[in-house]
Order: sequence, then structure tokens, then C-alpha cells
Amino acid sequence: MDRTFQPVTYYNTFGPHEPAFRIESGDTLHTKTLCAQGIDEHDVQVADRGNPLSGPVFVKGAEPGDTLQVDVLSARPNRPEGWTRTVVASHVVNPGYVKELPEDEYARWRMNEADNTASLLEPATALGQSTLPLDPMLGCLGVAPARHQAISTATSAEHGGNMDYRAIRAGATLYFPVFEPGALLFTGDGHAVQGDGEIVGTGIEISMDVSLRVTLIKGKEIGWPRGEDAQWIFALGNARPLDQALQLATTEMIHWLTTDYGLDPRAASILLGQCVRYDIGNVFDPAYTVACKVAKDVLP
Amino acid sequence: MDRTFQPVTYYNTFGPHEPAFRIESGDTLHTKTLCAQGIDEHDVQVADRGNPLSGPVFVKGAEPGDTLQVDVLSARPNRPEGWTRTVVASHVVNPGYVKELPEDEYARWRMNEADNTASLLEPATALGQSTLPLDPMLGCLGVAPARHQAISTATSAEHGGNMDYRAIRAGATLYFPVFEPGALLFTGDGHAVQGDGEIVGTGIEISMDVSLRVTLIKGKEIGWPRGEDAQWIFALGNARPLDQALQLATTEMIHWLTTDYGLDPRAASILLGQCVRYDIGNVFDPAYTVACKVAKDVLP
Amino acid sequence: MDRTFQPVTYYNTFGPHEPAFRIESGDTLHTKTLCAQGIDEHDVQVADRGNPLSGPVFVKGAEPGDTLQVDVLSARPNRPEGWTRTVVASHVVNPGYVKELPEDEYARWRMNEADNTASLLEPATALGQSTLPLDPMLGCLGVAPARHQAISTATSAEHGGNMDYRAIRAGATLYFPVFEPGALLFTGDGHAVQGDGEIVGTGIEISMDVSLRVTLIKGKEIGWPRGEDAQWIFALGNARPLDQALQLATTEMIHWLTTDYGLDPRAASILLGQCVRYDIGNVFDPAYTVACKVAKDVLP
Amino acid sequence: MDRTFQPVTYYNTFGPHEPAFRIESGDTLHTKTLCAQGIDEHDVQVADRGNPLSGPVFVKGAEPGDTLQVDVLSARPNRPEGWTRTVVASHVVNPGYVKELPEDEYARWRMNEADNTASLLEPATALGQSTLPLDPMLGCLGVAPARHQAISTATSAEHGGNMDYRAIRAGATLYFPVFEPGALLFTGDGHAVQGDGEIVGTGIEISMDVSLRVTLIKGKEIGWPRGEDAQWIFALGNARPLDQALQLATTEMIHWLTTDYGLDPRAASILLGQCVRYDIGNVFDPAYTVACKVAKDVLP
Repeated sequence: MDRTFQPVTYYNTFGPHEPAFRIESGDTLHTKTLCAQGIDEHDVQVADRGNPLSGPVFVKGAEPGDTLQVDVLSARPNRPEGWTRTVVASHVVNPGYVKELPEDEYARWRMNEADNTASLLEPATALGQSTLPLDPMLGCLGVAPARHQAISTATSAEHGGNMDYRAIRAGATLYFPVFEPGALLFTGDGHAVQGDGEIVGTGIEISMDVSLRVTLIKGKEIGWPRGEDAQWIFALGNARPLDQALQLATTEMIHWLTTDYGLDPRAASILLGQCVRYDIGNVFDPAYTVACKVAKDVLP
Repeated sequence: MDRTFQPVTYYNTFGPHEPAFRIESGDTLHTKTLCAQGIDEHDVQVADRGNPLSGPVFVKGAEPGDTLQVDVLSARPNRPEGWTRTVVASHVVNPGYVKELPEDEYARWRMNEADNTASLLEPATALGQSTLPLDPMLGCLGVAPARHQAISTATSAEHGGNMDYRAIRAGATLYFPVFEPGALLFTGDGHAVQGDGEIVGTGIEISMDVSLRVTLIKGKEIGWPRGEDAQWIFALGNARPLDQALQLATTEMIHWLTTDYGLDPRAASILLGQCVRYDIGNVFDPAYTVACKVAKDVLP
Repeated sequence: MDRTFQPVTYYNTFGPHEPAFRIESGDTLHTKTLCAQGIDEHDVQVADRGNPLSGPVFVKGAEPGDTLQVDVLSARPNRPEGWTRTVVASHVVNPGYVKELPEDEYARWRMNEADNTASLLEPATALGQSTLPLDPMLGCLGVAPARHQAISTATSAEHGGNMDYRAIRAGATLYFPVFEPGALLFTGDGHAVQGDGEIVGTGIEISMDVSLRVTLIKGKEIGWPRGEDAQWIFALGNARPLDQALQLATTEMIHWLTTDYGLDPRAASILLGQCVRYDIGNVFDPAYTVACKVAKDVLP
Repeated sequence: MDRTFQPVTYYNTFGPHEPAFRIESGDTLHTKTLCAQGIDEHDVQVADRGNPLSGPVFVKGAEPGDTLQVDVLSARPNRPEGWTRTVVASHVVNPGYVKELPEDEYARWRMNEADNTASLLEPATALGQSTLPLDPMLGCLGVAPARHQAISTATSAEHGGNMDYRAIRAGATLYFPVFEPGALLFTGDGHAVQGDGEIVGTGIEISMDVSLRVTLIKGKEIGWPRGEDAQWIFALGNARPLDQALQLATTEMIHWLTTDYGLDPRAASILLGQCVRYDIGNVFDPAYTVACKVAKDVLP
């Protein structure tokens, strides 16, 4: 069933908050998200900055130990301008180079509906009116965390969160472990475009219209967020440093391959050894995100 | 000029060794490489295992402070079978999962010239005779290191080395900083196929016929290996942990963009922020390799 | 004023929970803490395992931007037996060594009041009845975190938390940044003895009688927990990996030296360069803890 | 037998270089070392900067698989002035703090023989003529590396090297694995004083008179440098990041405890869990150094 959820309250933590909306497994949720600064489609600041999220959405019947499937049906910018920061983070360059970095400022980008692109309006640089194809994605998507924690929407963990991974876009399906009754789904922090790693600390930040189909998978237990799209299956690890995020993602992928694809750990190793691909979701937030991917056409 | 170099001695370090062959800038070098265990195209062990390399090739006129351009014209397996290891490295999974890993053994893979694929011969697993498209690459490519060091061919640094990066394949051009007179080029450790990260510790290891065009760029100074292919330019950082390899690669890319593409550091940041892509070359060797990439079609 | 607080409810998160007790600045708080498994001085399990804490204690007048000073007056085991785990964590040894580690089990340790030591009761090993001097400490001490988060008592951050640092013992004074009205002080997870790093995942875990004098420092803003004892001042950084924990601790110490000791950043650098000492508090929990220390006798 | 070795040539790599001096096992070697910039006791620059070392000393009978024991009998500054750098390294503070660091310059320190201290001569800071007790140590000590490598004296590995660990001082005994015939011992880079981590990139750098007793332990194989002094035994791990250096040191200590002290891995774990101490040798050089220590009075 199609359900429309217009948020009134926004949260800056993923946590066991009072449900704002209740749905059934199989429902499609149509909602709106603010940009990372809390500004809506009408350019009005309606929530505190720092990734204020829409939710929590309570999914009837969800219990700890289940998995929540979220199909991203669409995620579209719903205002004419977005913004980015303009200097790479001091922790993604050599420490000795940090002093060479310019002062940060904001850049403005215009959405061009006609050709589905975004163009740089300011600052003026040698890039001119740089124009990039839109590739809208959700920076934040996830559920209430383990152990009744309330975790800042600046970061991520087993529950998903602020993973800032480009592949969380229309056409992707995500899977999250359920830790609280009702799962308590949150989303927000949409980006019209974003490079790997979110290394300037932002994508093109913008408010969005978002449609998600939510399905409860009873009794299926996973350790970390997983996902798939037309070409790939992927497992996500969220931690610092990158090495640990990669360990978490790789281990979750092995669990997936050995549980659902009929491979023992050796066969999973042989497959991954020659076929694995890694993406760096974000290398900016307190927890980094690494995706361990396998192409569907090499899966048994 | 086309030059054919048949190695007699092989080296297990990148170092200031006695030149084995001398060429001019612009020459194309046709040579052969052994597999990582030192076995040649006739299945004869002719050198010590541990990435024995062909070289060093002395490039006339090369001096410290120059850059050596290496166009990989071709890299083709020249024997019918290659091998891999079969268990993911203990350091790419969660420490708590290590005890679940099986014992390592070798797998054999057959090259299928007819359709340019490789098929798994043994061990027998649920993968069956898994068949993968060939994507041959050079695990080791580089020059003699800085400070007159002799560095194991198991690892990598500013001079290149054992970077195990999939994009070092036919069609790619690599650039290396020159640290010793003659540059002293080495190559070897060919892989018929390899996943990101070389997480089982090998690609499909095999001897190869290799053709490289070598061009000296006088007075051009770079800090770390760089490269390009039809679609991308990329800068390589080699270090542990991944975080530092990424810092090195990102900083080298900023230097490149600001030196050769007319961007100031802010413009370079804006471009990278929304367009950068990262590849994990290897996450197995003593130094890891991260590539920082920008698509040629978004470059100014 | 001396105040006695007997907890009834215990928390497994540091968070903005309903205050359990209210004190004035300058009060001395006498309370009891459970062991990490939730077992009290009478060997009764009264709370869920996973570092259930005593608190939160509301300090009248405390507001975000203040600092809370906590003098640890005493911390004494109050039951005859404690326990430890018996195998070093898989992430503090080489990944390739993990398979050699034995299965974990529990060890029991007896407190010897007569000579202030602890003796190993079981398992039987070549150590025999190993006897160690008691050095009781508080594994968990801190306040409610920033941004209204509720963070697991398994980990630590700017608010303190599960830092598992040996120097948090009787005679030490700790300083915490205040993030919530009333500061909301929590403590627990006492250890009769603990090595650096808490590398088996526990000290000798035991319930305790604890006395803390709590003083509010209005308008004093600090970034991370600080402390001092008779010999040292120390700043604490909590993060993964160790490198980042060390960066945080070192930076906080520089802020301290430049704000309170009349040093500019160069003088602080010269002093630290030749005099700094680092302790590894824990290298087991999700966030590691590093202490950056300077001896009081070299301070200006 | 006492042997006096006056170096003529100095090396900036640990490597399989031509022996400069030959001794027998049991000999005491009296030699001189330059400061890190290559300046001798008469203030004359006699070698290239970057830790030029005295050596290699060939120990008759030493073969790969043996262990070389080196007793540091004395290490004393032999000129009146040493120098340090004056700004903490950009990689030991928060990346966001780097821009606050002052420009680096050199500081001069005077040795006070009368009271065995060093005093800061310049620059002028709020520290005034800061005076610190001398605690002379050897920044570089080690043998030729594995796999016939020649490794820069800026870094360290299994062979020892530039470990910059304060405990390598008179009264300490070090043990190194032998990789080349004759072991090929090198030393240099003396510091009159140094804080943990060498975080300004130097101790008080000075030339020294050094006396070492060298003993060959035939057939004893160790993995990483080990040492002991009156109070401690310690194992050294050299790698980046700190987490890996700590893993290497801890694993080497477990090997030591299980091989030489009659403990099985569980007993070793129990002992380390409650008694281990960690020192950070250096957190400045390309490879960091961590020491895993156990007090002799708790050893079985």
C-alpha cells in the first residue's frame, strides 16, 4: 500500500525514539527529506543542522533478529539549488600538506531538470560552470541501533546510518539488521551528486522526495547492512580506520556467500580473491564505510 | 626502436643493481616475466620464489628528478596454467573470524585462448569449473627506490614496486619518479586475473610476454607513481594502513591537478569532492596500494 | 557534604537518562558499583551484563560548556572474588597467529585483604597461584555524551566512558566536558588489577565501594577528558585506531599547556618532544584510549 | 676482548654492505657515532645527513637463524651541544589542528657534565633555559635486514633499525635476528634525551662514544628485536600503524614467554592480561615502534 509520511519532527540521532509513522511490511513510503543543514524544499530551515532525519517509521511486526529490506524506488532533489563544501578534509591528505589547503567556504550548485545535471554557480574557479550528471543518493539510511543506543546522524554502525555511499540510490535494495521493535527506519541527508569518500565532507546537499518500499524479512539475521542493485551484491562495513571497515565488509560478504549461495569458506575465498570489488563509501565521517561487492554474473 | 630483452638474472629486490639491459628513451622493450614463484613459460623454475623480476633496464639519460613513462603495450600469459592461493588473508577479515578460515592450498587455473578466459581446474568446490574473463596485469612494475635502498619485491613505495593494481594492464601508461641514474626499470609478477586488493595473496599467477614502450620525461618531477588509461587518470599511494595510502594518493592527485590542469587547490577540491573515485589496488602486501582517480571527461 | 547513593537502576549506556541522584558541587559521593557482568558485592546478579553503571548523578548547576572535576577518593573491591578472561584478544596479536590462540574461559581470582593482593584460583596453569599487588581502578567513568546521544558502556568518546585506563584510581582527579544539564555522572566496571590495554578484554572484574568528590568548574571548556595525580597531568583521547587516539590526546595536551601553563605552541612542542610519556589505556574496546602525559616536575 | 672501531665510511641504509670491522663473539666494541646530521664530536660534518651509521661490524660465525646479543655498556654524548627540532609532527596531532602549528626551526641544547643535564639555549620561549636530566640512548641499532634488502636508516623492521626507543640505553641488552653472514651490526643516531614517540622528529641529537658487548647466540631464532634491562623484558614491533606495531610486539612476547618461560599460550595470556606494559618507542618514523614489556618480578 502507498503511504505518505510528512515529517513534523526531525532527529539528529538514530535511536529508539517515539515512532512518527507506522506502516505494514510491503508498504511503499513516500516522504520528504531535508538537506544536511535542515533546510526543506521551500528553502526554509525547519530543523537543526547536522543531518536531521525523517522518521522513525515503525514497521509492524519487526523484532530484533529480523531483517528490514528497503527498496529505494526514487530519490529526487526537490528544490533548485544544493550546496557543497569546497576543501578536501584535512585527514584525507598528507599531514604535511594540510597547511597548503585553502579556507573552506560554501559552493552553490543549480539543478538542471532539463538534462538531469547540476552546475556550479559559485565560487568562481578555473572549473567555471562545471556541469555534472545528477546521481542522487541518500547519505543517511538505517534503523535504530543495537543496545538501545542513540547514535549521532553524523556517523554509522551496524544499523546503517550516515554511510554516504553512492550506491544507495534509486534502483538499489538495502537490508538492515533489526535491533528494536518496529525496526524504526530513518532517512535523510540526500546528495544530488557525490564522489567516493565524500572527501570534502559533503555531496551536493539538497532536500529530496523519497519513495521506499519496506519489506520485513522475519527470522533472517544479518550482521551489517547489505544491498544489491542490477549488477552487484554488496556488504557494508562501518568503522575506523578503513582497514577495519574493509574487514567488516569482507567478513559479512563471506557470511552471505556461505549462507545464501551454497559456498563453503574456501569457495567463497576463491571467488572473492579473483572477483571482489571494493568501494569506499565515505572516508570523512567518524566511522568510514567500505563496500565489499561481487558482480551478480559471477555468483553461482 | 624495438628491443628484445631476455632476462638471465632475476632480482627479488628493487634496487641499484647492475643493469641487465640498456635502452634509449622511446624504445619498445619486449621481454618475458616469470610467475611469482619463479617459474617460466616452460614450467621450469629459473629463479627464487617471491616475485623474481626481469630487469634492471637502464634508460640512457635518466637522472634523479626525471620521470619515466611506461606504456604497457601488452601483457599476455605465455603458458597454459596459472595458480592462486585459496583463502582470504587473515588480516582482511574480522580478527574474530580468523579461526573459521580453512587451511590454505593452491588452486590451478587453465587459460582458454579460444575465448580469452581462465577456468578453475582444482580444488573441487561448489564453484565447479568457474570461468572468468582474462584481464592480464603486472603485479610488479617500478624503478630503483630512493636513498639507494634495495626494497623487497613483496612491497611497494614511491618507486612503484609490488602494487598489485588491476589497472596496470595493456592500454595503461604509468609514470615513475626516477631516483637512480638510468632509472633501472623492473617488472614481473603477472596475473591473468585479480580481484581488488589481491585478498587471497595472489591473482592468477602466471608467466607472461610483456611489451613496454619507455619514454624519459626530463626534468619532470613527481612524488608517487601516476598513470592513465582511456578513461581515467590516477595517482597511486603505497603505505599501511589504507588511510595513509589514500592520503598519499589524494595528495599526489591534487599536485597533479594543480600543476598540469590549471586548477588551484580549491578548484581541485571541488572537482575531487564530487567526482573522485578510489580503487584499492592491494590490501595484502606490507604496503597497501590505493588509487585516486578522476575520469578524463570531467577534467578541465 | 558526604552523600550516599545506592543505585537501584543501572544503565548500559552513557546517555541523557532520568537522574537517579542529585548532588551539589563539592559533595562527596559514596556509592557502589557492580562488576562488568552486573553482579554485586553479595554475588547477586542485579543488572544486565555489559558494564551496567551506577548513575546518572545530576550535579546542580552544571551546563554544557562547563567542566566536571571528579576526585577519586577511593575505589575498593567489596567482595572476595573477581574474574578475568584468559586469552588475549584476536586483534592485539598478528592476524596469522590468531589460530594458535586457545579457547577463552574464565579465571577466578581471590582478593587477599591481608597483604592487598589478588591470587589466581583457576584455571590451573604454569603460573600456579600467581599473586599480584592490587591496583584498583574504575573502567567506566564519565558523563552524558554530546548531541544527546546514548552511547554503549562498552566504548568511550569525548564524554569519557569505558576508557579502561589504569591511572583512573584512588588519588587521581579526572575532568570531563559537560554536555547535558546536570552533567549526568556515571561510573562502574571496577578492576582490582589491569594490565595496559586490557588486552584479554578484562581486568580483574569486581564490584566496588567507590567515593568520588565532585566539583563543578563553571565556564571552563575542555575538549576531551583530562586528569592528574601526584606525579602527572594527562589528557585522554578515545578513538580507533591507536594513531587517532594518540592524535586526540596530544592535541588536547597542547591545548592544556597553551591555555593553563603559559606556553605557546612552540614551547609546548619543545617540552613534549623531550618529556612526553604515552600510556595505552585500552586497546580492546570499540574506541581505544591513549593518555598523553607530562610529569608535574617538568611543567613550568 | 676490547676492540676499538673508528668508522671511516658511514651508511644511510642497513644493508649487506662491505664489513668495516670484524669481531669475535664476546668482544666489546668501542666506537663513535655521529649525530643524525652527520656531525662528529669536533663539530665537523663527516657524512651525509639522515642518520649516517657506524658499521657494519661483522661478527665471526654469525649465520642466518642465529641471534645477536648486544649489551649496551655505555652511550655518552661526546660534544658540548646537541640539537632538536621544535614542532610536533603534523601526524601526531589532529588533522584539523595542523594549521595552528608554528614553523619548524632548530633548538640548541647544552650538555652540563657537572650535573648530567641538558639545558635549552635557544630559541627563547616561556620554557626559559629548561633543564632536563640526561638519559642517553641509541636511536639506531640493528643488523642487515632480511631478503638482502638495504633499508633506509630513517626506518625500522625485523632487523631493528631506527627504532628511537628510549630504553635502548646503557644497561640494556638487545637481541636481533641474524639475516646475513656476520650479522652486520650498525649503530648511530644518539639522543641525549628523548620523549616517548620522538614526536618532534628528534631527541636531543648528538654524537656519542658508545661501548657494546656483542655475543652470538648460535641456533636461537627470534622474529623481532627483543631486549631486557634490570626491571623489564621487552619485545619490539616495528610497523605502521601503531595497532600493527603493537600486534607484532605482543605476538613476539607470547612466543618468548611460551618458548623460554614455560608458559602455554593461555598462561601467557593471563600474565599479559593483568601485567603487560606498552611503551611507544617512536610514532614519527615511517615504521612506528611499540614495546611490549613484562616486569621481571612477575615472570615465572
